Amino acid sequence: MKVGVLGATGYAGQELVRLLQCHKEVKDLYLSSSSVAGEDYDSVYPHWSGQNVGILQDENVPDLDVLFCALPHGLTAARTSTFLSRNIKVIDLGADFRLNSVQIYEEWYKIKHPAAELLKEAVYGLPELYREQIRGQALIANPGCYPTATLLALVPLLRNNLLQTGYLIIDAKSGVSGAGRGVSLGTHYSEVNENFKAYGVASHRHTPEIEQELSRAAGHPLTVTFTPHLVPMTRGMLVTIYAAVQQGVNEEDLRRCWLEQYQDEEFIHVLPPRTWPQTKFASGSNNAFLQLTVDQRTGNVVLIAAIDNLIKGAAGQAIQNMNLVMGWPEGQGISGTALWP
Amino acid sequence: MKVGVLGATGYAGQELVRLLQCHKEVKDLYLSSSSVAGEDYDSVYPHWSGQNVGILQDENVPDLDVLFCALPHGLTAARTSTFLSRNIKVIDLGADFRLNSVQIYEEWYKIKHPAAELLKEAVYGLPELYREQIRGQALIANPGCYPTATLLALVPLLRNNLLQTGYLIIDAKSGVSGAGRGVSLGTHYSEVNENFKAYGVASHRHTPEIEQELSRAAGHPLTVTFTPHLVPMTRGMLVTIYAAVQQGVNEEDLRRCWLEQYQDEEFIHVLPPRTWPQTKFASGSNNAFLQLTVDQRTGNVVLIAAIDNLIKGAAGQAIQNMNLVMGWPEGQGISGTALWP
Amino acid sequence: MKVGVLGATGYAGQELVRLLQCHKEVKDLYLSSSSVAGEDYDSVYPHWSGQNVGILQDENVPDLDVLFCALPHGLTAARTSTFLSRNIKVIDLGADFRLNSVQIYEEWYKIKHPAAELLKEAVYGLPELYREQIRGQALIANPGCYPTATLLALVPLLRNNLLQTGYLIIDAKSGVSGAGRGVSLGTHYSEVNENFKAYGVASHRHTPEIEQELSRAAGHPLTVTFTPHLVPMTRGMLVTIYAAVQQGVNEEDLRRCWLEQYQDEEFIHVLPPRTWPQTKFASGSNNAFLQLTVDQRTGNVVLIAAIDNLIKGAAGQAIQNMNLVMGWPEGQGISGTALWP
Amino acid sequence: MKVGVLGATGYAGQELVRLLQCHKEVKDLYLSSSSVAGEDYDSVYPHWSGQNVGILQDENVPDLDVLFCALPHGLTAARTSTFLSRNIKVIDLGADFRLNSVQIYEEWYKIKHPAAELLKEAVYGLPELYREQIRGQALIANPGCYPTATLLALVPLLRNNLLQTGYLIIDAKSGVSGAGRGVSLGTHYSEVNENFKAYGVASHRHTPEIEQELSRAAGHPLTVTFTPHLVPMTRGMLVTIYAAVQQGVNEEDLRRCWLEQYQDEEFIHVLPPRTWPQTKFASGSNNAFLQLTVDQRTGNVVLIAAIDNLIKGAAGQAIQNMNLVMGWPEGQGISGTALWP
Repeated sequence: MKVGVLGATGYAGQELVRLLQCHKEVKDLYLSSSSVAGEDYDSVYPHWSGQNVGILQDENVPDLDVLFCALPHGLTAARTSTFLSRNIKVIDLGADFRLNSVQIYEEWYKIKHPAAELLKEAVYGLPELYREQIRGQALIANPGCYPTATLLALVPLLRNNLLQTGYLIIDAKSGVSGAGRGVSLGTHYSEVNENFKAYGVASHRHTPEIEQELSRAAGHPLTVTFTPHLVPMTRGMLVTIYAAVQQGVNEEDLRRCWLEQYQDEEFIHVLPPRTWPQTKFASGSNNAFLQLTVDQRTGNVVLIAAIDNLIKGAAGQAIQNMNLVMGWPEGQGISGTALWP
Repeated sequence: MKVGVLGATGYAGQELVRLLQCHKEVKDLYLSSSSVAGEDYDSVYPHWSGQNVGILQDENVPDLDVLFCALPHGLTAARTSTFLSRNIKVIDLGADFRLNSVQIYEEWYKIKHPAAELLKEAVYGLPELYREQIRGQALIANPGCYPTATLLALVPLLRNNLLQTGYLIIDAKSGVSGAGRGVSLGTHYSEVNENFKAYGVASHRHTPEIEQELSRAAGHPLTVTFTPHLVPMTRGMLVTIYAAVQQGVNEEDLRRCWLEQYQDEEFIHVLPPRTWPQTKFASGSNNAFLQLTVDQRTGNVVLIAAIDNLIKGAAGQAIQNMNLVMGWPEGQGISGTALWP
Repeated sequence: MKVGVLGATGYAGQELVRLLQCHKEVKDLYLSSSSVAGEDYDSVYPHWSGQNVGILQDENVPDLDVLFCALPHGLTAARTSTFLSRNIKVIDLGADFRLNSVQIYEEWYKIKHPAAELLKEAVYGLPELYREQIRGQALIANPGCYPTATLLALVPLLRNNLLQTGYLIIDAKSGVSGAGRGVSLGTHYSEVNENFKAYGVASHRHTPEIEQELSRAAGHPLTVTFTPHLVPMTRGMLVTIYAAVQQGVNEEDLRRCWLEQYQDEEFIHVLPPRTWPQTKFASGSNNAFLQLTVDQRTGNVVLIAAIDNLIKGAAGQAIQNMNLVMGWPEGQGISGTALWP
Repeated sequence: MKVGVLGATGYAGQELVRLLQCHKEVKDLYLSSSSVAGEDYDSVYPHWSGQNVGILQDENVPDLDVLFCALPHGLTAARTSTFLSRNIKVIDLGADFRLNSVQIYEEWYKIKHPAAELLKEAVYGLPELYREQIRGQALIANPGCYPTATLLALVPLLRNNLLQTGYLIIDAKSGVSGAGRGVSLGTHYSEVNENFKAYGVASHRHTPEIEQELSRAAGHPLTVTFTPHLVPMTRGMLVTIYAAVQQGVNEEDLRRCWLEQYQDEEFIHVLPPRTWPQTKFASGSNNAFLQLTVDQRTGNVVLIAAIDNLIKGAAGQAIQNMNLVMGWPEGQGISGTALWP
């Protein structure tokens, strides 16, 4: 099979390359980068030296079976209909096809949507929650990293009406790699190291994505208070979620709901009671780890989910989606446990 | 003046030594450590080499003006009445005198309180909130690090009835130095570095301390959901707090309340709108930084406070209390800005 | 095939487990840990939750094809002859069989060698330098991490008499995981983080191992000045080596020697001129990266090698040795590029 | 006294501001930054919020007693004669006045020297080695960070002819703050964190500065092999130096030489035997820590020095020079011990 990556020199793009190199079904790999077309891949990333991973191409996409788009929002949508018409399956790691509503997209992303007519064809690619809808589809919107962690924790509980939705507090923490490879003072080593801060408070673009999917699960519109923070580490993401449980619901009910949803899942691990997720449990893997407890004194449930932001939160999940789309074993190329320590 | 430190080889104790060495009113410094009495201080901490900071003494406390106790809970209370009867002012960095209720202390700390009769004499030493009560007192309970950051943010708003108290969510993050110098797998470098996790979920001992002081400020009993997390950095603490605002209260009302409380304070800094606190702003200093916003979509206020856990959260605040107790300038020995970068 | 790991809960042991889980020829995996026999592996390492990697056994080793020993020195040697007599191939990640000389072993390791008679049967398992000697052997001494990086850089140059040996300076730097999982003040997060130091100056036990192999390559006895340092990071190792070049030898000669040695090697990468190795190039992989330059002003060559201390420096190389011993493809189970970033 | 800082928004400039704020003799502080003149200092560095440190001025330097220049090389020299003619003492933290030879300056810095005639008036400001020459001078060249650490270790030993100079190997390691506040891929958090690398191999601009001062100490020209490395930490610098001792010289001779040189120095600490310097011993202070041993097996001495690159390696030493120039107590404003942990 022929597979391509647009945006192959960003961190998500490079992670796709690493994983696709070991994927059994992938024979030809087309790599593209608008900024450094014509260069050897290992001139951009010297750790690929001697691996012959290929030369970066311009954006004249050849005939492919699957194309991963790891581009800033707006760029993918403008070209998608062409890819689809050439019978190329598109898995978009950007935000262009995640929101159903053109209006909400334009409000949060501040641009006109370049391909509004395709929104109804796109499937939200969170396999553990929408597996059947994904199989065989041609256009997959790969979820954002924060939404992935948040939805894995909350969707089953909301589908089963176990939580109140009056207040849903999502306090999220991410490693710095989520900010990408572009340099800025905000990712300058000496300013980030030994430091911890919030950013995008009450304004992060993953908010409407989370709300859309949680509203779908709850069966009615709801809002969330979402605060991302930057952790002085490269990889990893952990979300801590607070909500009130429904009258009469206890910790065991919540845990049972998770286990029913996830017991056969290869990548989702509900930890034994009182073992709390750590981001390092997931680091370098496509795994997600979940835990919860009900604070008896306040009636709030505390839910925690941990993933690797670049794998389950980006490239790994994109390959999981490719496997579903193509009918291959879902874990092909993304099995394996975290790198520890 | 003669000043002493019990527990001088722990991290809070060592930070006291560092600050007291530069304090103009302190002439004699008595340092004690039960485990290494008789050793030169620089054999425990070689970075003190050549500074002649003295030899560690046993626990036969000489006549002193002020004694800082940086010991595990339970050990200080057992000896406090003796110190007080010798006319030594006691500033306890531990938990023995923070809680007014013997019952709550015994429930959370799992030991019988060794000096319950002294609880009514102890003053909770958070100077910006209880300055007048602290002046001249003989027994000061220095607050915990998480409570310090939390109370600075919430107490003025609750005193002025600007927040609802139905749910108060405190999502807190601390550097690893808060766990002290005792070795364990939980503070082993390779397990903590490049990792992020929650701990003490719904069970941390700072919970009742926070609730006691918030209830006092609100004028009625309330509970909080408190979740501490461990950040892969040595110093620093940041708390993110979520609550519903009272009907008709807006962001400007909340900010004005903070400014009225803190505008003349040397150490408390309400940042300009949209500049969010970072732990590094406070690192190495006694400063605290505050910011808030109201999420219009949910009606929740998001409050953030950042401090250095070992200074404003421990040793620096203890010296601020000593200055108040002794009638010295409040900032003596603890002025100065963060070390950056 | 049946494969076992003694010492499966240490960091090298756990890395073996991770790699062996994905190795195509390994069907049964026996894991042993003297301290926690009987426990599920995921109770020790929760990131293995749900992976069914098995229960830790006691040290009654069953019939196996290959046994990896990741134990402190002295423990493996005492039991090796039994394993060999049962026709189990032994790959020792410890130091017991690395030194040819009983006397030097006993001088540096301060114990009597428990199996001196086996030393002549052991092969030093650095595949790129001793591949033919390793194939089919029953007892492999897996090299130390510092020796691996050092020997890859120096052995070809000494074999070809391109360097003087009057002074050989090896300034080495390692991540903290090399110190293992045992807790101590020296690996306590708050003491190691944001800190850099030398340790074992002029006394590290890898010194005689390096000297033995360099002397063999040079054809005469030589000594080295070896200084290891601890870098505040979890994984990675970099050695910077200084030596005088032989009269008439230039940078191109040295580079050509390396290329001749390594051009067909899967794991050894001589970088293009002026691209210097970084530890992260190797992190999570079995790769090694090399670079050199001759400082024209002093006549010294500066050689740098970078590896992942737990993979090419331990578990990955051990599996490479297993593959050679068993006649499998040498890169089986250890191919793959570094995790970046 | 009136004191100014040109380049007040770089890391060395900001550290000067922090230290000068607490300096008893400094009454007025003029801060300048070409890029952000007119802005409040706390809009550039929010941790100064509420400290009223002043507004950044343009480069029209007012009448001052002392001016610190923390600018890129080339910029200071062009304006220095004007400052001197206005009777302003100049302490240059850049490289313009460190090298005696115009030719060597132009060869390494690749520009024409803008004020070659002033070189003979400049004094190399390393107080512990050139104290008497510094007192009262008008133009001080503040040493580079690597030279400071290196010269403190080597100069006394070379002055006393205790070392051979056939090979002098300086393997140096620095925290990332030494690279300044300008953003680049080389200081991008995700590329630097959990990574270790050499840079500027055999080409770093501190090489001729080190050689000039070592040659002066030895009494004859010599060269060094100097390799700087980047450590994943913000602050701190450690140099490991290798040389052959002179015939008949032993470890005790070398130590005695250091002690004679440094026993009365406030900032230089020769540690007790076998206690090796760590960068954190110096972090946040003007202290330097030294240790050495002779490797009996090779006859090489291993010397290690640790400093804080931004304090003893830049801003702190500059203030020490100001104190000497102005006749104030040498430690004024820069006493104090490292921040630990």
